[in-house]
Amino acid sequence: MSMPKGPQVFPRTEYLRRLSAVKAEMKRREIGVLMVTSPANITYLSGYTSKSGYVPQGLVVSLKEEEPTFFTRHMDGPAAMHQMFIDSGRVIGYPEELIANPDMDGFDAVIDFLHDKGFASSGVGLEAKFVSAQTVEKFKTRMPKARVVDFGAGIHWIRGIKSDLEIALMREAAANADAGMMRAKEVIHPGAREADAAAEIIAALVRGVNGKPSTDLSGFYLCASPRSATAHIRWSEDVFRQGSQINLEVGGVRHGYTSALMRTFSIGKPSDQLRRVHEGEVAGLEAALAVVKPGAVCGDVAAAFNATLKKHGFEKKSRCGYAIGIDWTEPTASLKEGDRTVLKPNMTFHLMLGNWIDQDLGYVISETFRVTDTGAETFSKLPRELFELDPI
Amino acid sequence: MSMPKGPQVFPRTEYLRRLSAVKAEMKRREIGVLMVTSPANITYLSGYTSKSGYVPQGLVVSLKEEEPTFFTRHMDGPAAMHQMFIDSGRVIGYPEELIANPDMDGFDAVIDFLHDKGFASSGVGLEAKFVSAQTVEKFKTRMPKARVVDFGAGIHWIRGIKSDLEIALMREAAANADAGMMRAKEVIHPGAREADAAAEIIAALVRGVNGKPSTDLSGFYLCASPRSATAHIRWSEDVFRQGSQINLEVGGVRHGYTSALMRTFSIGKPSDQLRRVHEGEVAGLEAALAVVKPGAVCGDVAAAFNATLKKHGFEKKSRCGYAIGIDWTEPTASLKEGDRTVLKPNMTFHLMLGNWIDQDLGYVISETFRVTDTGAETFSKLPRELFELDPI
Repeated sequence: MSMPKGPQVFPRTEYLRRLSAVKAEMKRREIGVLMVTSPANITYLSGYTSKSGYVPQGLVVSLKEEEPTFFTRHMDGPAAMHQMFIDSGRVIGYPEELIANPDMDGFDAVIDFLHDKGFASSGVGLEAKFVSAQTVEKFKTRMPKARVVDFGAGIHWIRGIKSDLEIALMREAAANADAGMMRAKEVIHPGAREADAAAEIIAALVRGVNGKPSTDLSGFYLCASPRSATAHIRWSEDVFRQGSQINLEVGGVRHGYTSALMRTFSIGKPSDQLRRVHEGEVAGLEAALAVVKPGAVCGDVAAAFNATLKKHGFEKKSRCGYAIGIDWTEPTASLKEGDRTVLKPNMTFHLMLGNWIDQDLGYVISETFRVTDTGAETFSKLPRELFELDPI
Repeated sequence: MSMPKGPQVFPRTEYLRRLSAVKAEMKRREIGVLMVTSPANITYLSGYTSKSGYVPQGLVVSLKEEEPTFFTRHMDGPAAMHQMFIDSGRVIGYPEELIANPDMDGFDAVIDFLHDKGFASSGVGLEAKFVSAQTVEKFKTRMPKARVVDFGAGIHWIRGIKSDLEIALMREAAANADAGMMRAKEVIHPGAREADAAAEIIAALVRGVNGKPSTDLSGFYLCASPRSATAHIRWSEDVFRQGSQINLEVGGVRHGYTSALMRTFSIGKPSDQLRRVHEGEVAGLEAALAVVKPGAVCGDVAAAFNATLKKHGFEKKSRCGYAIGIDWTEPTASLKEGDRTVLKPNMTFHLMLGNWIDQDLGYVISETFRVTDTGAETFSKLPRELFELDPI
């Protein structure tokens, strides 16, 4: 029996539309064949979310063929056949002998394929940020007739504008993020271990709501006093105390698509300083969302936030957010002063207003939103509060 | 107020011992300064486990200085000051302007530092597998007088032999993995959603046991019928059914150190074929452990497994395991026929006997073990069973 296809996340037409956009960009850059290695880009072009990217893998897109061909280690072939929209015959499981082999790896199998197909003498695109220097060198050495070029963030930019089908998944993911945040309000109290709270919050994220569980874990950070000025600590072995501040960052995930959410909690009354930061940040958040509309640029959104926060006596050094979609951050548009990316309907951003002001003051709040025809739609339904928890 | 140091996972002497070993290897390779970018290697040399590796970061080890210097984005500086054993003044938070900047990134801050310190004209080591081709090129271009060389898996090999302090953490992590696996036995039943079971198992992994919670999430794969021939699917939206097979891979984590564990479950009686695979695999597992002792080589362990499994009528194409420690796999020794790595006391391996035999037959079992003075110590206390669950 061969591995059955699983339920497909998107119709075939959706994947073909995405591939057409990538192929158009390949033509523009005079690239005949492109090896996609970014796991998020592979998800985008095929529906594959299995976690095989810790060893070489590549989705090979050719201008001469409608469907791409996927190379992965032999043991991961069945998952690709199950999840990907492409014909299962296009999933090539390369031999296990290429794993932990000092002389050859899975990319050699891709290069052999490119030679066999006669693709090794044209422009060959790689995603140089997603392969090692050694791999780029191998492509150049083993395909001396090819013009090996970096495709850069070409696919990431195409991913920037979502279809309504993608937006629907991001709304579902956001509902799961909300569920995790609401669970946090129930389980954080003095004397509770950070790890126990994390366990409960993560479980709520995974279970999700509305019969749509999260399909993966995602970035999860619980930075509590005395670590509330840190940004990316999972959690610690400590317990919460009366007066503790907790900065929480969570994501819901649906078939790769992530909606991120940050909120700050205080056990008992927050300090006046924290309250003032919160008021300035929420005012800034609302000012930022107010300028979102098609035709505005990313820099406008950041400028509105920064100007408002400044009026409240604070400043934020890091950017105000970034494009978000599959696997969280898209390395393209930033909500940052000077970013001239023009907003278009169904672009999605994490308006990430986490602000690590000093070594003893950090605060987080965020919204994941899409650009609508006239403004912004935020996906979370949670109030923009500094959550004050009962000191039980 | 400045960020306080958190409780340190290891004493200073332990970190200095590790650094000495790295510096000796640097001397051997005539490298005066080394930029460590592998997140696991940074953890090893400093205690840092915060998740800032999604943007450029580097721990700079110099032969001229006792402690290394860490470069991370500004917002991640406080976490490094809190977690790392080094003087907080050696944590350099590079400006947020370098994030999402098309012209410069955090590695430019490292290169500036190397120039300022006069380190830019000697041998400079990089971990080429853990930086992009673009970054290697940047180092060569911006430091024309330096000899930029790949340090390869130099630090990974040093990590291979654990101290007793590290082994203690791996035992704690294993107890947490066991707790997750035991929770699986309780929550997997016909009609339950895979996601709900995953939520419960992950929560048990995080809570841990003996007052030692897991400090991070790790690889988690729940591959259930009809996906039991896949290896790395998180979980699906499906429900378990009477007769379902479930292949589960989990890890407990203590301060970066991971103990991995795999077991196969069957709701109701397993098929005769699955039972036969299980018997062959357990016999092979025991044969493999029986040859573990100092002086044996990795290939011996794999050969013992393979020969035994063959007698039972099956074969496994992928290697039988790999060195394990911080962040799961260490890219060094493999339990694979032909691997001549000599076993030494306190080397640790994941004897990973997951066997994806065909598109309709996968089975998993594993043990994380250390080499003792005379044999092997497995960390898990779970029986090596094919767990048969009641069809409720």
